[in-house]
This record gives sequence, C-alpha cells and structure tokens, in this order.
Amino acid sequence: MTSALSRRHSKPTELMTQGSPKIRQNHQIVYVCKKEMLHYSRQDIDQMEKIFRLNLINSCTGYKSANLIGTQSADGQTNLAVFSSITHLGSNPPLIGFVLRPTRVPRDSYRNIKASSFFTVNHIHHVSVADAHHTSAKYSEDVSEFSKTEFEPEYLDGFQAPFVKDAKIRLACRFLNEYPIIENKTLLLVSEILSIHLEDGIIENDGWLNLQQAGSVTINGLDGYAKTELIERFQYAKPTR
Amino acid sequence: MTSALSRRHSKPTELMTQGSPKIRQNHQIVYVCKKEMLHYSRQDIDQMEKIFRLNLINSCTGYKSANLIGTQSADGQTNLAVFSSITHLGSNPPLIGFVLRPTRVPRDSYRNIKASSFFTVNHIHHVSVADAHHTSAKYSEDVSEFSKTEFEPEYLDGFQAPFVKDAKIRLACRFLNEYPIIENKTLLLVSEILSIHLEDGIIENDGWLNLQQAGSVTINGLDGYAKTELIERFQYAKPTR
Repeated sequence: MTSALSRRHSKPTELMTQGSPKIRQNHQIVYVCKKEMLHYSRQDIDQMEKIFRLNLINSCTGYKSANLIGTQSADGQTNLAVFSSITHLGSNPPLIGFVLRPTRVPRDSYRNIKASSFFTVNHIHHVSVADAHHTSAKYSEDVSEFSKTEFEPEYLDGFQAPFVKDAKIRLACRFLNEYPIIENKTLLLVSEILSIHLEDGIIENDGWLNLQQAGSVTINGLDGYAKTELIERFQYAKPTR
Repeated sequence: MTSALSRRHSKPTELMTQGSPKIRQNHQIVYVCKKEMLHYSRQDIDQMEKIFRLNLINSCTGYKSANLIGTQSADGQTNLAVFSSITHLGSNPPLIGFVLRPTRVPRDSYRNIKASSFFTVNHIHHVSVADAHHTSAKYSEDVSEFSKTEFEPEYLDGFQAPFVKDAKIRLACRFLNEYPIIENKTLLLVSEILSIHLEDGIIENDGWLNLQQAGSVTINGLDGYAKTELIERFQYAKPTR
C-alpha cells in the first residue's frame, strides 16, 4: 500500500502470485497480472484540492439514482432540478429520502417543497441526460428550467407540482419531515409517495420495475451518467449453504 | 390515466398525436405510437399484496448503490452483508449515510458497527453478484458470510474490520451518529470515511472514479443487479442558455 495523493498516474502493473479460492483448493498456483492498489488516508483526503476531493468522494460510494424533482412556487413559477440522492426509505408506508444543503442550490426546490409540501420525482431517460444535467445550472429563481431545456411540464390529476412530460416513471410526493444532519449541516428530507405514474411495459408481474426497460440512467459521481444492462434478478436469499 | 392495481398486463398501445418540441416549432404534426400510462394511487399502494408493494416501491426511486459492508464482533466473528442504501452525504468532511431497520436483518452488521464503530464498504463487481446477493440470507450470528461465499476477508493497515479481498473500491469507515426516522422506525446511520483503497486505473486525473472501469454494479429494486455503460460526463453546468 502506498499513499497516492501526490501520484495520479498509474505505475506499471506487477506480476505477482494470486490464488483464486477454487484454484487454491486444488493446490495449484497461478501467476496473474494483478494491479497495484492505491491508498488515500484521511489526511490525504483532507488535504486534497477541493474539486479533486468532490469528484473522489462523490463517486466512491457507488452509483446513484438519477431523478428530476419538479416543484412550483405559490405564484406558479415552476422549477426542475436534477437530484442524485433520492433513496428508498421504506415500502409501507411508501417513503423516500433525499439530502440537500439548504444554503446552496437547489434552493428553489427546497423553498417550493417547504412552501407547498408537494413535488414530483421523474426518472431521467438516457436520451435526456444533457438537458437533465443542465438543470443544475444556477438560474435565478424567476427562470424555470423547463424554459431552458426540452423538458415540458405536465399536470396530472390536479396535483400541484409539474411532472416531466414523457418521463416513463413519475412519482407524486408530499414532504413529511426534515432531519438536520449536524455532522455537515445538510438536511435529510423524508417524504411520502402519493401516487405512481408508469409507462406500460415497465412493471413486471410481481411489481418489480424493469429500469433498463424504462431507459432510466444512473449517476456516477457529480457529472457522469450511465446506461444499464440487467445481469440477473435473484430469488429471496435463504441460508441453504 | 387508469388505475392499474387490478390489471397487471399491457393493453394494446394506442396511436395518438404527440409533438416533440422541435417538430412543433415547424408546425408539423407527427403520429407516433405512444404507450399507455398506468396510475397507482396511494390507496392502490396501501392495498397491494405485500411482495408486490415491496418490489414496486423498492424500484420506483431508481438505481441504488451496490456495496458489501464488512464488520467484526468483539470476539472476532466476521460479518458481510449487501447494502443498497449507501449514499454520499458530503465531501468535506467525507461522510456517507445508509438506512437500516434495527429490528430486522442485517442485525449483525448493526450490532457490530455500534459496538466497534468500524466497518468497511466494498463495491460489488459484476462477476460476484450471486455471492453478494447471498449475503442477504439470514444466517445465525455465529456464521460468517465469508464462509458461505467465495469472498475472502482481508485486513489492511491494522483496520479493525475486514475488507473484501480483491474488491476494486474499498472504504474504511467509522460510525458517527444515528438519526431515528420516526415516520417508519428506521435509522439513518451517518459515518465518516477514514481511508480509501482503490485498484490502480480507476481514478481519473480530476479525482473522479470510473465505476464502469471498476466493474461496479448498481441495484434495481430488491434483487436486480445491473452492469453499466458510461454515456457521458458533463461539465459543471452554467446558466448560459
């Protein structure tokens, strides 16, 4: 293990002994080309240049959800913003959570959600990633991101926040509670799902949504958008081994 | 919009008028085949069969991260469990969060984290999804999931929790705080990243981790594992339109 803070480029890979579990059982030794590991200590992380640290820490926890949150102010001004932190909190009642920093963008989303309680969650399709990312630009509050992208607002069933027209998976949500995270002055917003709108052909017989079929993307770090390909669905795991 | 609770199969798609923004500008009308939308109200969701609701609500927020959390009890018993709720909370200090229900599995992970404060986060590679999912089986607390899968524990730099050997992205973490989510009796655990171990070739010059290069997967719902393909990284968005 070597500290890699001051060394950003790859060293040559080394030839070293590595036994996979199966091969070891047969008492064989194979020589494979194993890549070197890099190590960043907490001191390295704390001393990193800011953008380098933002990219590293935002991508090191793995893939994130990719959604557009639609809101509306009391005087009818719409807002649309990309969020990568929306996560499942529970199924009964149906709850979601997401994190934001109220002192930074997207301030408009937060203000509208706190004022009206209502917002929409709209999956980002792989054909729309450029426009979806552009909603993170800091437009002033009197400018709707709907007017700066090809996304169109759509109102369904009298719900008081705009959905993204043609999004294939859309949730109508209501804000319930916020939890201040004292460790870094962020907020966890907890909300309930009021209804779900789906394009036909995405939901399977057991309620599972095929997100590949929906064309939904996933986010890598702050700015990377990825398509997906299902490997497999597994049965409920039982202790049978 | 039709309520779809009692209708799981697709109706024939309808031929209807739909104008894309570009085509409308030229005052043209195109006829495209647009799929029907399904609508589930909150009453529908509350009345769903339990497994159907679990699958639907667990997949409707989009893709999730795919990690194995490694822990160790005071008497040295190791534990390994798949988690799909690990999310980025902040970069400075480097914080992560994940949600669990302490009255259910994975109880062992929670107990070990609360006892020692230390745990590891290990990305799941696409070759290991079957074994990763198997760590969700309810083995008794004296059985290590390392003994029931091909994952091998590895100890690095004297850290008091086991890493997954050969995982390409690994975090050493320390528990900081827990927030009870009163709406559904779950807990948000907030932890700090103490160090990061990476295979060489994954980190780019600006700190961004190429998760496709790492072979990291993403989780669709409770039981679907997907590979990814990067579409694009975008520049920091500015209000230039």
